[in-house]
Amino acid sequence: MTAVDFTAFVDRLAAASGEAILPFFRTSIGVEDKGHGGGFDPVTAADKAGESVMRALIRETFPEHGIVGEEHGDDRTDAEFVWVLDPIDGTRSFILGMPIWGTLIGLTRGGAPCFGLMNQPFVGERFFGDGASASYAGRGGQRRLRTRPCARIEDALMMSTSPTMFTAEERATFDAVSGDAKLTRWGADCYGYAMLAAGHVDLVIEADLKPFDIVALIPIVEGAGGVVTTWDGGPATDGGRIIAAGDKRLHALALERLARG
Amino acid sequence: MTAVDFTAFVDRLAAASGEAILPFFRTSIGVEDKGHGGGFDPVTAADKAGESVMRALIRETFPEHGIVGEEHGDDRTDAEFVWVLDPIDGTRSFILGMPIWGTLIGLTRGGAPCFGLMNQPFVGERFFGDGASASYAGRGGQRRLRTRPCARIEDALMMSTSPTMFTAEERATFDAVSGDAKLTRWGADCYGYAMLAAGHVDLVIEADLKPFDIVALIPIVEGAGGVVTTWDGGPATDGGRIIAAGDKRLHALALERLARG
Repeated sequence: MTAVDFTAFVDRLAAASGEAILPFFRTSIGVEDKGHGGGFDPVTAADKAGESVMRALIRETFPEHGIVGEEHGDDRTDAEFVWVLDPIDGTRSFILGMPIWGTLIGLTRGGAPCFGLMNQPFVGERFFGDGASASYAGRGGQRRLRTRPCARIEDALMMSTSPTMFTAEERATFDAVSGDAKLTRWGADCYGYAMLAAGHVDLVIEADLKPFDIVALIPIVEGAGGVVTTWDGGPATDGGRIIAAGDKRLHALALERLARG
Repeated sequence: MTAVDFTAFVDRLAAASGEAILPFFRTSIGVEDKGHGGGFDPVTAADKAGESVMRALIRETFPEHGIVGEEHGDDRTDAEFVWVLDPIDGTRSFILGMPIWGTLIGLTRGGAPCFGLMNQPFVGERFFGDGASASYAGRGGQRRLRTRPCARIEDALMMSTSPTMFTAEERATFDAVSGDAKLTRWGADCYGYAMLAAGHVDLVIEADLKPFDIVALIPIVEGAGGVVTTWDGGPATDGGRIIAAGDKRLHALALERLARG
């Protein structure tokens, strides 16, 4: 299996899911559809369309692989290779027309993330990683992704998705780090990790993540030189409470602070 | 003056400022520059470069016009036509590499906003308005901008920039509306108003805005069928505490709620 070029295949997944999703982006929800549950919901339609097309390509190309998806459930999760798909990470941004959602395509081997892609088809940019290296393709061509050094919480630019992702206790713990950071910005979703891999963000701290929210991002962050774990330093693969840092020293300091609460 | 095609001229301003600003976007700040005040600051450099090139074009083309800018101060603000410029609205997004900042180019006549453009050169999209109509140019070509109907706070998708823009008292008033809205999302900056004009967001409520944060957005929101005023219903031109709604009924309800506090 190591001879298979997953990069080229993942490019096909990204192109196909982008084509399936984009027609639904910035499609107004009619007011008659809001709050009644029965109307047309562009983000659900886009999520389903994006996942269906990726599942079909995977089944056709790698019938022996497993698939975990947000919309259509799990298939053969005991396979050596399992794809972990989130067609639209950042559904709130998607709904509001903000171009900062992304399609997450992750691949695990024996349960460990070995390849990941974040695709933003509206902006036209992709972030790839295999744990050993990471790269960017978009405006201005292709380039290597590298996290930047940042040794102190006081110097860190920090992102997280939403205050509502935390319990009250988790929020207090989060604030113990965030309160000392140079800047904290909400609205991250997958872009927080992508910008960390690209060296613009130093720290992402989140909670309540599902595996499909994080699996694809792990090989990107790690490939760019960063660290991503749970708040107690364990593997991030199962989601939950997650911390990513561009600099290992910063990760160690923030973990300590999270442990103290 | 009414025969002058400001649309074509503003296109030149947008193209020139985009070219000046983009080389600084996603440029890493070296860690040695952070927190010492003496290092290279890409966002300030980009802000200055963007404003300089716009000022030069305006002086050359309309020497009799006034200019208000964030970086280089005010010129001839008593002129009939005054340009109000913010090269990078959303500096925090810019610093973090998030593609949701914008260049704001506004024009007032006799003190009233008469033309506005929001340009996002990385994504490649522009939002124009003259108070009577508004349009979009970007992916998928050009199209008319229209706000969408939304008559109730409970149905409203709401945006604002940051909790830190409010005083404690303002925050409590904000929460009185936000608490009933269907969804509230931080990280708006100029994109909140652009997405409201495009019919994806229903309500934007903010505080502590400068004139150059809002002047360019007024003709876009109004041209798309929305309303933008201060929290007490006055003209938004001078900034301060601002509310924008896509639907006049929603604006009236939210104003009432803000007045009650």
